[in-house]
Amino acid sequence: MDIVIGIDIGGTKTKIGLVNKEGHCLETAFFRTREHPDLDEYLDQIKTTVEELTSRFPERLNILGCGIGAPNASSRNGTIVHAANLTWKGTVPIVEKMQERLPMPMKIMNDASAAALGEMLFGNAKGMSDFIVITLGTGFGAGIVANGKLITGYDGFAGELGHVDMTIGDGRLTGLNVRGGLEAYVSATGLKRTIMYMLSQYLDESRFRSIAYNDLHGEDITRAAEEGDPIALKAFDFTADVFGMALANFTAFTQPEAFFLMGGLVESGKWIFEPLQKYFDAYLLDVYKGKVQILRSGLPPKTTAICGAAALIWEEYAG
Amino acid sequence: MDIVIGIDIGGTKTKIGLVNKEGHCLETAFFRTREHPDLDEYLDQIKTTVEELTSRFPERLNILGCGIGAPNASSRNGTIVHAANLTWKGTVPIVEKMQERLPMPMKIMNDASAAALGEMLFGNAKGMSDFIVITLGTGFGAGIVANGKLITGYDGFAGELGHVDMTIGDGRLTGLNVRGGLEAYVSATGLKRTIMYMLSQYLDESRFRSIAYNDLHGEDITRAAEEGDPIALKAFDFTADVFGMALANFTAFTQPEAFFLMGGLVESGKWIFEPLQKYFDAYLLDVYKGKVQILRSGLPPKTTAICGAAALIWEEYAG
Repeated sequence: MDIVIGIDIGGTKTKIGLVNKEGHCLETAFFRTREHPDLDEYLDQIKTTVEELTSRFPERLNILGCGIGAPNASSRNGTIVHAANLTWKGTVPIVEKMQERLPMPMKIMNDASAAALGEMLFGNAKGMSDFIVITLGTGFGAGIVANGKLITGYDGFAGELGHVDMTIGDGRLTGLNVRGGLEAYVSATGLKRTIMYMLSQYLDESRFRSIAYNDLHGEDITRAAEEGDPIALKAFDFTADVFGMALANFTAFTQPEAFFLMGGLVESGKWIFEPLQKYFDAYLLDVYKGKVQILRSGLPPKTTAICGAAALIWEEYAG
Repeated sequence: MDIVIGIDIGGTKTKIGLVNKEGHCLETAFFRTREHPDLDEYLDQIKTTVEELTSRFPERLNILGCGIGAPNASSRNGTIVHAANLTWKGTVPIVEKMQERLPMPMKIMNDASAAALGEMLFGNAKGMSDFIVITLGTGFGAGIVANGKLITGYDGFAGELGHVDMTIGDGRLTGLNVRGGLEAYVSATGLKRTIMYMLSQYLDESRFRSIAYNDLHGEDITRAAEEGDPIALKAFDFTADVFGMALANFTAFTQPEAFFLMGGLVESGKWIFEPLQKYFDAYLLDVYKGKVQILRSGLPPKTTAICGAAALIWEEYAG
């Protein structure tokens, strides 16, 4: 059976999976990225995990290659550069070092760009020429497709929209020290920060008065919203406002037919989508009104990033 | 001789020229757009002007077609829609109506997108795959090229960056009622508005205390800066700050190799370019530093927009 290894290097987890031609992730495993601050040891852990995954198959696998999605990855150079949410700093020659351990065709790309390829190959963007995928995990990423092609930019670093300066309110710092940068507001981390902000701004009773920042998870915030917690509701509304303005601004850039959202924050469902649609409609220029959809990714939620990474290799085999 | 008619429909002037294969504008004429609020009468005026221009040639001209650059033009439908700086409102089927008067191959495009094609065909962007052209006239326009192709968007309205919401300071309204929109700050009009703002903020002596808004022209502001007028200097610095942040944000989108600036504001030379470079460098993410140039357009200043419009037709004949 033909198979591609998909690896998603995230700020929190590293996810690895075996992906078939239809984009189905047949086997997966993950480990915590931060538990391997030493790069060589981290890459050894990936190798071990891949071997463990492939050994689960009794039949012989024909491994076509390995696709890697990672923050701040340069597809041109095969490196990760200055990634805010990863522990290794500077320029990391990840493809070169990984190929020493797994000798096979290998490509790396910004995780959100990889996700955009995945959405086009396996998901809801089939047949679309102009769309933008937004990943809302630890950070905020964007993969932009225009004229039917992924935009990589002069040097492979297009789509770093998480660090677009929104010059909003209190001007939070992102991990790249951008004051008022988008991902400080719109991401799983951003939502947590907004809970803290709302606790500072208002005196409403809230379950979050007895939960420490480090113990706070996205699911808690969704559950609290369902229970009518005023701090959670204010936090979603505020997040959606910033997010809606950002998507309206992005529309003016490449005029996508649709935005596809994926990642942790999407699991909050209507609590994020409903106010987002309201603010987006309010901010959007007339000339775009009614022409731009905000949709969920069509990739399976748990393995979205793995499928995206695998798409880097499967793309070459697509008809 | 083969020739293309280039027409630039601007908020202030309508410029018409005859452009040869090398992008040289051989004959030009212009008239004031606002003097023709009736669309049919306006189009008649264009026809008359074209006939006058071609009659200047003793030799027979082989007219290949007509390219039109206009604000908010849809290349797909041949229309102008909701253009903030034009007097005709709603959707104007300009190509259809113009072809009744000038029956020939005809294309229309957002003026800044046309300028980007012109820059690629005739100007300083030859050989570049990723760049952005910024036009700074009555409004603020952008033509975006990525992967060697112009980005038109789902519906032909990509690049409306003048209405990106910068949520800056006093939140000025653009002509499209966007509060804090970029072109309310960065454009020939924006600079005039900033002179008014600086007169409100400071008590410095300035020549502008005795010039009314309607009598104020870009050249006056440049001349005042050369004479050390503190209001002019503050206005350029403020404009460059907003502009520098905008270009830094745009870089995160498609990572262009260069920005090419054209239009009235560019004539202010070092008074805009020097502070712009300073602020751009300060706002740019580390990952992009040293890789993105801010340059002048390589098209002749007086006929930039005409050359851009003509490029819509000449593009089809390019090797």
